[in-house]
Amino acid sequence: MGTPARKKRAVVLLSGGVDSSTTAAIAASRGYRLYALSVDYGQRHAVELRAARKVAKRLKAAEHCVVKVDLHAIGGSALTASMQVPKGRSPSEMARQIPVTYVPARNTVFLALALGYAEVVGAFDIFIGANAIDYSGYPDCRPAFLRAFERTANLATKAGVEKKGRFRIHAPLLRMTKAEIIRAGLRLGLDYSSTHSCYDPRPSGRACGACDACLLREKGFEEARVGS
Amino acid sequence: MGTPARKKRAVVLLSGGVDSSTTAAIAASRGYRLYALSVDYGQRHAVELRAARKVAKRLKAAEHCVVKVDLHAIGGSALTASMQVPKGRSPSEMARQIPVTYVPARNTVFLALALGYAEVVGAFDIFIGANAIDYSGYPDCRPAFLRAFERTANLATKAGVEKKGRFRIHAPLLRMTKAEIIRAGLRLGLDYSSTHSCYDPRPSGRACGACDACLLREKGFEEARVGS
Repeated sequence: MGTPARKKRAVVLLSGGVDSSTTAAIAASRGYRLYALSVDYGQRHAVELRAARKVAKRLKAAEHCVVKVDLHAIGGSALTASMQVPKGRSPSEMARQIPVTYVPARNTVFLALALGYAEVVGAFDIFIGANAIDYSGYPDCRPAFLRAFERTANLATKAGVEKKGRFRIHAPLLRMTKAEIIRAGLRLGLDYSSTHSCYDPRPSGRACGACDACLLREKGFEEARVGS
Repeated sequence: MGTPARKKRAVVLLSGGVDSSTTAAIAASRGYRLYALSVDYGQRHAVELRAARKVAKRLKAAEHCVVKVDLHAIGGSALTASMQVPKGRSPSEMARQIPVTYVPARNTVFLALALGYAEVVGAFDIFIGANAIDYSGYPDCRPAFLRAFERTANLATKAGVEKKGRFRIHAPLLRMTKAEIIRAGLRLGLDYSSTHSCYDPRPSGRACGACDACLLREKGFEEARVGS
């Protein structure tokens, strides 16, 4: 109601972690009306989705769409199949080797769903929390991938073909360190206590403190406190 | 067992319709070991998946993976939301206007899932029954889209980054008329009675005979019989 009808719409991929939550806060700060999209891809815990719901609400998203995709059927990752999540890896180990928590073609699947959702709600801007620095070694977080997907998006859709607009993939965190990301979020008033990062939370929902995501999160908060 | 271990693997997107079934038969005839992938995206009927299962079995696919994706949550199409499927459209009407049966970003989502599956089973060849002639007006069946996706695929994946191979998107039906497709399938011994096309089947599973898919199928069989 209070939102002007003409506000530009953006779809934001929102997992509920630090990166996607900060990305959503950045999109909101740029004046977009948010359409949050969470993908329920058979994560081990529902904690992540609960966190996404909280963040979407706090950022006053116009809609929060949760799409179920059964990536279990495909398997191939510690996050969707029954493999062990690696613990206690150093940043250089993370950078050297693509971890087993890599979900095959995950960001391609996520961006494809975001594209479909964008077309339905009439948005041309898609925000994703991809990060090429503290990125834990995932190939589908690299700038060249995002550019290639953007090109594909504009050829893939009715909206693109009918030239109603041009799809843009925004990855505002791409060149930021985890500490810079957290500082940006804090400046925008983001409450990180709602966010969730752990790949392997305990049944209670508490973070394990030792997986790549927990270690990167901790390092980020540490450095954000220290300043740069 | 009888299959040589070294046979090249291909993922084939298999809906159980004429086009994807013919595509699978073509992939098999080129000597690939088939990994069939069907996407259960909240179609109105399970008939399509049953047909896919039959075709995969007849073509001796090594695996048939069914991935559930709840495209209902996104909506925006007569195939996934509660809109009416258009009936009795002429081929020129189909060509002029993208129909409401268009599922937003469908082939992007399907190819993304196929890419993930290919990475898991160690395939670099992905077959899709996209067709740019009797294509019912879908933008994501055009050659430029498929080339853009192929480029994206090679940037998106661990397998692509580690240069273990090059992903290729094969669309052998791209330039074929429906009649040519059916003749190709018949030559390869495909039993089209197992396939299914209708967008709006009756509760019994019988085709409606009037939606775009039924009309294109009928026209195709008509012309295939007449010969060209």
